[in-house]
Amino acid sequence: MEEIKEIMKSHTLGNPVRLGIMIYLFPRRRAPFSHIQKALDLTPGNLDSHIKVLEKHGFVRTYKVIADRPRTMVEITDYGMEETRKFLSHLKTVIDAIHF
Amino acid sequence: MEEIKEIMKSHTLGNPVRLGIMIYLFPRRRAPFSHIQKALDLTPGNLDSHIKVLEKHGFVRTYKVIADRPRTMVEITDYGMEETRKFLSHLKTVIDAIHF
Repeated sequence: MEEIKEIMKSHTLGNPVRLGIMIYLFPRRRAPFSHIQKALDLTPGNLDSHIKVLEKHGFVRTYKVIADRPRTMVEITDYGMEETRKFLSHLKTVIDAIHF
Repeated sequence: MEEIKEIMKSHTLGNPVRLGIMIYLFPRRRAPFSHIQKALDLTPGNLDSHIKVLEKHGFVRTYKVIADRPRTMVEITDYGMEETRKFLSHLKTVIDAIHF
């Protein structure tokens, strides 16, 4: 029951789009905004608003790089890694306890 | 990636409180409103608003029973069982693919 309560308290990762973004970034550490958008099939506006929430809570940081053209990179922070790890671990405990 | 997208589309279960309620009900099939409230540490108003969303989308149904006093029972529907099973299965696939 404690893990369910922990999951319920995670307002940042409790949103399925933000959870999807963090799961995408987790093994990669960083990705261009446009890659995340295409991979997860999101509109730029929708992705942008969720990235802003994640950035505000310290889960990711963003920065610009200029190669042939400017692009926005999204990078998971150490804090974001740790919070995502904890959230997934709670989810795993809960899921493993259920026969479905 | 498909499983992440499926998770991201689940607006009903994408809310962590509603997911918690469904995980609580899944192995039990039904429970009194007051038991869910205590087990998940929710206010009656908060639980009520989430139960209403779950009921509207056909995941649970509620009914009154009168023993020594009236109580509201919350019961998971067959549709709610199936949707929860699918959602947990997608989550499990995603989590199992990540080293964390």
